[in-house]
Amino acid sequence: MNFKVFDGGICASKGFKASGIYCGIKRPANDTPETKHKNDICIFVSDTVCNTAAVYTQNKVKGAPILVTKKNLEKSGNKSIAVIANSKNANTCNADGIEKAEAMCELLAKELNIPKEQVIVASTGVIGQILPIEPIKTGIPKLVKELDYNKNIEAATAIMTTDTVKKEYAVEFEIDGVKCHLGGMAKGSGMIHPNMATTLNFITTDCAISSNLLQEALSEIVKITYNCLSIDGDTSTNDMVSLMANGMADNKEITSHGADFDTFKSALYEVMANLTRMLAKDGEGATKLIECITSGAKDKDTAITVAKSVVCSSLFKAAIFGEDANWGRILCAVGYAQADFDINKVDVDLKSKNGIISVCKNGTGIEFSEEKASEILSADEISVLINLNDRNESATAWGCDLTYDYVKINGDYRT
Amino acid sequence: MNFKVFDGGICASKGFKASGIYCGIKRPANDTPETKHKNDICIFVSDTVCNTAAVYTQNKVKGAPILVTKKNLEKSGNKSIAVIANSKNANTCNADGIEKAEAMCELLAKELNIPKEQVIVASTGVIGQILPIEPIKTGIPKLVKELDYNKNIEAATAIMTTDTVKKEYAVEFEIDGVKCHLGGMAKGSGMIHPNMATTLNFITTDCAISSNLLQEALSEIVKITYNCLSIDGDTSTNDMVSLMANGMADNKEITSHGADFDTFKSALYEVMANLTRMLAKDGEGATKLIECITSGAKDKDTAITVAKSVVCSSLFKAAIFGEDANWGRILCAVGYAQADFDINKVDVDLKSKNGIISVCKNGTGIEFSEEKASEILSADEISVLINLNDRNESATAWGCDLTYDYVKINGDYRT
Repeated sequence: MNFKVFDGGICASKGFKASGIYCGIKRPANDTPETKHKNDICIFVSDTVCNTAAVYTQNKVKGAPILVTKKNLEKSGNKSIAVIANSKNANTCNADGIEKAEAMCELLAKELNIPKEQVIVASTGVIGQILPIEPIKTGIPKLVKELDYNKNIEAATAIMTTDTVKKEYAVEFEIDGVKCHLGGMAKGSGMIHPNMATTLNFITTDCAISSNLLQEALSEIVKITYNCLSIDGDTSTNDMVSLMANGMADNKEITSHGADFDTFKSALYEVMANLTRMLAKDGEGATKLIECITSGAKDKDTAITVAKSVVCSSLFKAAIFGEDANWGRILCAVGYAQADFDINKVDVDLKSKNGIISVCKNGTGIEFSEEKASEILSADEISVLINLNDRNESATAWGCDLTYDYVKINGDYRT
Repeated sequence: MNFKVFDGGICASKGFKASGIYCGIKRPANDTPETKHKNDICIFVSDTVCNTAAVYTQNKVKGAPILVTKKNLEKSGNKSIAVIANSKNANTCNADGIEKAEAMCELLAKELNIPKEQVIVASTGVIGQILPIEPIKTGIPKLVKELDYNKNIEAATAIMTTDTVKKEYAVEFEIDGVKCHLGGMAKGSGMIHPNMATTLNFITTDCAISSNLLQEALSEIVKITYNCLSIDGDTSTNDMVSLMANGMADNKEITSHGADFDTFKSALYEVMANLTRMLAKDGEGATKLIECITSGAKDKDTAITVAKSVVCSSLFKAAIFGEDANWGRILCAVGYAQADFDINKVDVDLKSKNGIISVCKNGTGIEFSEEKASEILSADEISVLINLNDRNESATAWGCDLTYDYVKINGDYRT
């Protein structure tokens, strides 16, 4: 399905205002001059109450904001109006974490005059550092005052941590002859190996759709987008995707399976897959995006497992950084994927804007031009095509190369 | 149990001769002057036929030598006399791999005048490059001629790839009043994340013990040593441990469970755990050894799963390289371990020769001196102590830090 790409990120959907500011949350040691005054907190608010779906990290360590958001949505019957999110501090593993996350909801609810259970709260940054509530308290009235239908960028930049670029994507689609919109923003760029959830992602839509179908669509699309992404194999404690639908496009509400629901899911896939791609490309220290596409699998899970195994291999990721067509490492990673297929039927091709080359056929190396392979790998977006030659299922996983800068960033993140 | 540490590696066991030479197997592109003439092939031979146990990689891609060794031991009823192993080329994913691996066995068997099914063959190095058989053919008579009861070092250096030091360990122990010996050599140092098997390891003993108990001991000890090791999360295609027992110590053969079998297993653990530690410390690019010790687990598997999760975390490994006490990353990795425990009861301490410090209590951060933590992390061997505060099982996992040099080595390994 082809969608019209739309500007505006989370504000592409009708009736969503946003704002983002620097309120003064500090990193534990010294910020650099570049990061010192970057936006560190944002809110966004719908003009009307939204049906809401969410998925959360499967890490046993769950950030306090995750626990509070989950409880809020349970209490409100999956309704929400507003989101508050900060960077620089994850508010996780702190004795007073729940108290602080609840305070964030209460303060914003009071300022907006809405029930506190209709607030979603999220935090990202260093784990295990006490969250200072004072700058947030002072910041909230300012955030509310600055709310605007086109301040999506202010919000998207406020959730960046080691991200080097903001991540937003939005599309327009039609339901029942009515134009609808769906847009999102996401945060990278390390501790990313989503497991039944994802890194911090916020999606809005003005499409009218029931709560149940909203959750069904989100869970289904998460599985084939964010959950097929790995930067470094580390599943974060604060992963969350929320999806808010305020119905302001005024289409006939989607309440059952069928063509309209399929269109909605396609639009959701379009936004989430593009955000996933952006997250991979801006992985910590990354110089290259890696897309691994498995085809010919006997089922979807097999295709996903094999594709993820390749993008998670440190050895392969380092080889891609070095632009070395070391396909043995690809086959090695395919081989240790916990999935059911015949390794002796596996073909591997390498592809980029510079061309395509076969490097392995029926699980065995074939002769190829190293020169041509190097040229292909010199591009900044590399595709690895794996054909299991079994049946017809396929899947894509996204990742990035492993570089000196990844080590540099993470050798000294806190201090 | 305290064992007398013994010199001699695989030759510490009575009746084992070894040799190692440079025969001229080339890396696909140009070797460096340092690696050009390093030993690349070795053999070792027992004076009498050995009961033999082995475990192999669980990777679906299995090196040709693995397949040939497995078949040989099946045919011979788990008897072996000799081992031949080369580095620089893994003989894996090649159309003629089986043929070449069989030729290695045949050539050596002929030269030694033994059945070819009693030869174990192993290869390590680049995957998917045709193995040149000519230099091996020329090398074998020379290897046989040079066999000696104290050429263990010549053999141990011949299996090194990116290893910076050779790995050997041996102990003396007593069975039934008779002095026995058990010694081994191992090869690192990348693509190491053993799964029900391990990297290339060869162990010899002069202790008399039945084939069944030999295999039982090996499988049990592999689980708590090599399988608790991770350098980079990549399970190799050529993993193998072989354990040969020639009975030349002349003890009464161990044929049943009991005190003697327990002593044998302790000696085996001593050798395998020390080799595992050496492998971790010499991990590709590593500057620090990381030991993660989980205690208070409800069962052994839980303890192992949690400890392995921590040593596998790229983020944590990079933090250790940076000597940054970022315990949030430890707790994060504990949290995504697929095991059953209460995260709110978890304590974390950091320890080295410079002291010990508590950083997390009941799943929550506690105040600690960053200065003291930095001092502890400045050592080159770091222990992470994780207490699940549940029941009494414990386990150790071994790994190393993630460094610029890991990326450098693996960005350009083939060429």
